[in-house]
Parts: sequence; C-alpha cells; structure tokens
Amino acid sequence: MTEQPGRRPDNTSGRPRDAARTDAILTAAADLLLEVGFDRIRTQDVAERAGAGKGAIYRRWPTKEALLAEAIRNMPARQAPVTDDPVADLRTLVNDRCQSAQEKPDLVPGLISAMRADQGIEDAVKEGYDLSYMRDTLARILGADHPHLDVLADITQAVPLYRAAFTPESLDSSTMTEEIVSLIEALAAGATKRGSV
Amino acid sequence: MTEQPGRRPDNTSGRPRDAARTDAILTAAADLLLEVGFDRIRTQDVAERAGAGKGAIYRRWPTKEALLAEAIRNMPARQAPVTDDPVADLRTLVNDRCQSAQEKPDLVPGLISAMRADQGIEDAVKEGYDLSYMRDTLARILGADHPHLDVLADITQAVPLYRAAFTPESLDSSTMTEEIVSLIEALAAGATKRGSV
Repeated sequence: MTEQPGRRPDNTSGRPRDAARTDAILTAAADLLLEVGFDRIRTQDVAERAGAGKGAIYRRWPTKEALLAEAIRNMPARQAPVTDDPVADLRTLVNDRCQSAQEKPDLVPGLISAMRADQGIEDAVKEGYDLSYMRDTLARILGADHPHLDVLADITQAVPLYRAAFTPESLDSSTMTEEIVSLIEALAAGATKRGSV
Repeated sequence: MTEQPGRRPDNTSGRPRDAARTDAILTAAADLLLEVGFDRIRTQDVAERAGAGKGAIYRRWPTKEALLAEAIRNMPARQAPVTDDPVADLRTLVNDRCQSAQEKPDLVPGLISAMRADQGIEDAVKEGYDLSYMRDTLARILGADHPHLDVLADITQAVPLYRAAFTPESLDSSTMTEEIVSLIEALAAGATKRGSV
C-alpha cells in the first residue's frame, strides 16, 4: 500500500461532535425510513425532521446510503409484548408485520433493492438480523424445544414479504394474520401431549 | 385521441414472422434468466443461445425488458411430480426451491428489483403467479379441505427467498428442505383423525 503523506485521514476539527444531534439525525432517519421507505427518503427530509441542516448530515456521513446504514444499525432491537396470553402476544407481532405489508407493500422489497445496490446497507441489515423476540414468543406457545421455532419465526416475516412482492390480489392483513397464527395454533395442538396435561 | 396519418402503427414488412425463431429466442431468454438472473442477462447472450442475431431480437422487442417480460409470460406452468408418495413429491419440489436459493441467492431478490424497475416485468410476473401445483401436492398430503393449503404453498417459496435475502449465515438447502417438509408432516400428523383410520 502506498502512503499519501499530504492527506490526513481524520479531518475532524478537534471540536467534539454534538452527540445529541447525531442521535437526533439517526433517529429521524430510522423513523422516516420506516414511514416512507428507501425509494422516497430524502436527506433534506431527514434534516428537517431532526431540526438540523443538510450540512450537519454531510459533515457526519458522506452519502445518504452511509447515513441510512448507520440508522439501521442504530435501530433498537424489537421487543415482544409479554402478557399471560402468548397467542395474543404472537397475534400482535404478526399483525404488525402483516399490516405493514398491506399499507406499505414497497417497504421490504425496497429494502431488498437497497441492499443489492449498497454493500453498507446490506451489511447493516444482515448484521442486525435478529428474530429472537419472535422465536421467544413462539417458544412460549410451542415449548422451548419445539423443532420448528426457527422456520416459524422466519415464516412470520417471509409470508407478508412474499405476498407483498408477488401476489396480484390486494393483501388483507387480518386474514393473513389469522392464517399464520392459526397455523401455529394447529402445531401447538399437535405438540400438546393430551394425556400429560 | 389525435390520429397521426403519416405513421403506420404496424410496421411489419408483410413477410410472416418466423414463429420458430421467436419461440427459440423466448426459450433462450427464459433459460438464461433462470441460469444467470436479471442482473447479468444480456441481449447478446440470448441471441447467441438462440442462434439468432441481436437484430432479430430488436425487430421483435424494443427493449431487453420487453423481451424478458414476454419470456416470463411464455414460461410453461410448473408441473408437480405425482408418485404414490406425496411427501416425496413435496420434498422434490421444496428441495428444488431451496437448492436454487442456495446456489443462486440473487435470483429472486433480482427479480424483485426488476419488477420494481419495470412495469411490464411486474405485470408478467404477477399475472403468471400460480402455485396451484404446490397447493395440489399439499392437498394430497393434508386433504383438499385443509385450512392452511394457501399459506403453506406460499411458505415453500417465501422462506427460501427470505433467507436468501436476509440471513447472514450461508443457506444449507437440505436442512431448509427438511425444516419445511417436517413442518408439513407435523401438520399432517395433527390433521389425521387417529380413530377414523
């Protein structure tokens, strides 16, 4: 590797960055991403929502994609509701996903396109991939040693995405929610050893 | 609407088009699409595979996207194997899908991007959407009135797509196949009324 002695890799001014402003920008970017999707998010709109200027963004991130990748990394891990009715908790989570697929059918397909177009976004999404909140909810219904927890957790995400991308008829989120939840209930009924209850 | 009397909408020469050559081009485009995906398919390669010139393609379709949309419409409907072991037939179908996701993880994400970029491709894919071969195979296992045939048919496609797009670890197609097939077998065991057999 050749050195470039005339260039300083770290071009910061010495003044500590405004951490609160950085957080506000990342939160605004994450919120706006979930609202309007990759196709329509604009740096200008992130700046306005954060109460910042575009300059404040471009001093921190060289491109919109770099901002969005860090906003994705900065998103809080999803938490599952935990009541004494685990099927109701599952229904809440599945319904959220299905409603999002119905109301914003471009959101996840747009994410897939953005991941294919930008390595930083792909890395951020894949490294943050975590369905443990869903797996834990399923384990409360089916038992912690049920053999299908992983594939069922994926199913809760994959079916809404697949239908949003491919099925010609319009999605009905409440029907889709019940198809998925009742599938898991049917497995739970099979998993229950009747004699032992 | 205004007429444009100087222009003829149909610019054919009067010579009947070579239907066999058209078919050869569409077949070559469909085959190549499944082999290399939307990202890497080139009109030149379609022409070579079809034993035609690029001119023969552009006389028929104004753009690569128009050619690919017709190639998608022209793809034969998927047929399911029908033996006396419907679970084995299901495993064959699911394994094909999972192996494709492992070997060509960009294929379906690339299709989603192409659908988003071109309305003709989106229309061709959505109008050709037909999982009846999979639904029929599932019905042979679970019964024709099983309440989850539709969602299970989607699951066989959606899980390989979802994992190819999002899960960081590399896919193992035989493990994924068994996760999906054994899930359906668990439902089949639950659906069997033991007393009535």
